[in-house]
Amino acid sequence: MKVALSRSSTELDQAVPVVPEGESTRGHSTGVDLLARLESLCAGRGLDALAHRLHELVAFVGYDLAAFEVEFTRLPRDPRLVGKSASQLLDLGGKRLRPMCLALAARLGTGFDQRALDLSVAAELVHSATLLHDDVVDLSDSRRGAPTARAIYGNAASIFAGDWLLVEALRRVHACQIPSLMIELFETIEQMIWAESLQLECRGRLSIGRDVYFQVVEGKTASLFRWAMRAGAAAGGVETASADALGEYGRHLGVAFQAVDDLLDLTGDASTTGKELFADLREGKMTFPVIVALEREPALRPLIYKLTDEDQGAAFSPQEAQQVVDILRSTRAVEDCLDLARRTSAAAVASLAPLPDGPSKRSLVTVAEALVDRDL
Amino acid sequence: MKVALSRSSTELDQAVPVVPEGESTRGHSTGVDLLARLESLCAGRGLDALAHRLHELVAFVGYDLAAFEVEFTRLPRDPRLVGKSASQLLDLGGKRLRPMCLALAARLGTGFDQRALDLSVAAELVHSATLLHDDVVDLSDSRRGAPTARAIYGNAASIFAGDWLLVEALRRVHACQIPSLMIELFETIEQMIWAESLQLECRGRLSIGRDVYFQVVEGKTASLFRWAMRAGAAAGGVETASADALGEYGRHLGVAFQAVDDLLDLTGDASTTGKELFADLREGKMTFPVIVALEREPALRPLIYKLTDEDQGAAFSPQEAQQVVDILRSTRAVEDCLDLARRTSAAAVASLAPLPDGPSKRSLVTVAEALVDRDL
Repeated sequence: MKVALSRSSTELDQAVPVVPEGESTRGHSTGVDLLARLESLCAGRGLDALAHRLHELVAFVGYDLAAFEVEFTRLPRDPRLVGKSASQLLDLGGKRLRPMCLALAARLGTGFDQRALDLSVAAELVHSATLLHDDVVDLSDSRRGAPTARAIYGNAASIFAGDWLLVEALRRVHACQIPSLMIELFETIEQMIWAESLQLECRGRLSIGRDVYFQVVEGKTASLFRWAMRAGAAAGGVETASADALGEYGRHLGVAFQAVDDLLDLTGDASTTGKELFADLREGKMTFPVIVALEREPALRPLIYKLTDEDQGAAFSPQEAQQVVDILRSTRAVEDCLDLARRTSAAAVASLAPLPDGPSKRSLVTVAEALVDRDL
Repeated sequence: MKVALSRSSTELDQAVPVVPEGESTRGHSTGVDLLARLESLCAGRGLDALAHRLHELVAFVGYDLAAFEVEFTRLPRDPRLVGKSASQLLDLGGKRLRPMCLALAARLGTGFDQRALDLSVAAELVHSATLLHDDVVDLSDSRRGAPTARAIYGNAASIFAGDWLLVEALRRVHACQIPSLMIELFETIEQMIWAESLQLECRGRLSIGRDVYFQVVEGKTASLFRWAMRAGAAAGGVETASADALGEYGRHLGVAFQAVDDLLDLTGDASTTGKELFADLREGKMTFPVIVALEREPALRPLIYKLTDEDQGAAFSPQEAQQVVDILRSTRAVEDCLDLARRTSAAAVASLAPLPDGPSKRSLVTVAEALVDRDL
């Protein structure tokens, strides 16, 4: 953990484990690392007020994220083939956005207790399971700057590893004994599967419209953010109207998150994002800015066609890549995508209107606003 | 349905739907078809007593199997890519052994009611989900004499289709509100995953021993049979000691079932089994008779090595195939495998000792004894 956690002792939930001395989080990135990076980014851009609020956010939720990290790191690292495949992914760490959302929702109620902690682990496990299966489907060789599990241990092991993490997640949610959450998680996973199905069907198709894009994003990304918020609310005993508001926040946040991801696919720094440029496009996934630019500039078509083509994609030159970026800028598709991120981030914040003011709500606003400025 | 169902009306559970006129089971094979085939097989072999008991079994459980078939056929056939992939498998039908086990266990208690019906659908869905993922892992092109889902719709769609059926299964079990069954199903699926992991690690290894073989079979096959029996018992309100006995029956039956499958891989008729000869071996899976024969006859080693080798396997000649079969017979490995099937079938029957006599127990004995003589 890189950031010191300041919290008055009276605020600590006794049920939550403290990060033990010497307990390793295996050097991987964590949620607190993300917040620290966002804070320094904002400070570097002169966004001092947002940087200050991020500092407050770390103070508010850093302890919960540390507790999450310890619990998540305690997941059995099984030496068998499928276990090694799962560990390869789990040991990479992550941004921990879903656990952070869940913790903030729980803190709007009675707090981030053991049950909320278990649910946050479940949310990250579902996310991890989808990454394992996605990497097989996309035949991806690297993730977060490291080899994918499937690249090391093979596709078969990653398929079963994904199955395992999914079952581990459901087992934890079941143990929390909030039946509605279990039912909502089944629905969420099904939404994710249908979105994957739609994405598969549209793979490499240049003519998909914004409606298909939003269907995929709602299912693949927004639905799990929504569930994480609702799970935190349920664990914290938050009343129904507020839980619904928190769910809507999660849904909008998920879309905003994906819009920024789309931008990073075109303009991000691989050393920070751990992703090659145009990785999504090379897999035939149409991102929002590309859909917009294709609507406006027919000259982009042959370039994207070549980039997404299995045979020709490898021969895509740096000059062609620059042409794509130039067209995305000249058509203002990049601005439109940033605008989408800002609008959906604002919609997330607007969803919070029914909630009482306080550190939880302030934190959720900070998350929504800061995420738009992330570079990883 | 090919077999007339005779049952006194007083025995019918009103909650269970009757097969509606014209309701299609889409021409696929069903559990009753299996029983009818076993009956004619036994009659053809002069096993008249067993044939008669199979006839009784159909009378006892045929209605439940028909109800299962209707419910299972009602599963949404989704027109989206992942849905089509799932339908490709589901429409092939199956032997429905797990639902049959579940129904017989339930009938030892209060009967095969709506909840038991839902659980039987869940058991078959878990089985179907593993088949979809297995076919991707094994790169199989045909199953039950038809193209696999992955051969038509691609690996990616089959991965998500398997995920979908797994979630559908868990959703149904959760809806039955028997928490212990949910926990046991999580454990069962994990056992299945670890067995898959072990099988992957041992793929193509000629030196695996019987201990590894039994570990794989217990996890991959026996565990779900066991769960199906325990689920039926729980739905039927069967008391704990009897439920445990039924679970043990399922476990032994699963091993017996696999031993017969191993024999059919070597000696079966592809037009009946829907499987190519040596299909398991070609995928690098060591079957029981091959493990036994390798212990006894070193000359088998180079043949099996060639058969399981990715590059050389395709060039395996009919003469070499005959040599393998000859060695399996001369080493008495085939007899030993049949003996394994008979012993574990007898162990299944012995597990039933604590249960009261009656049509359910008699049916379970019939299933265990008849399965050893199956040819599909």
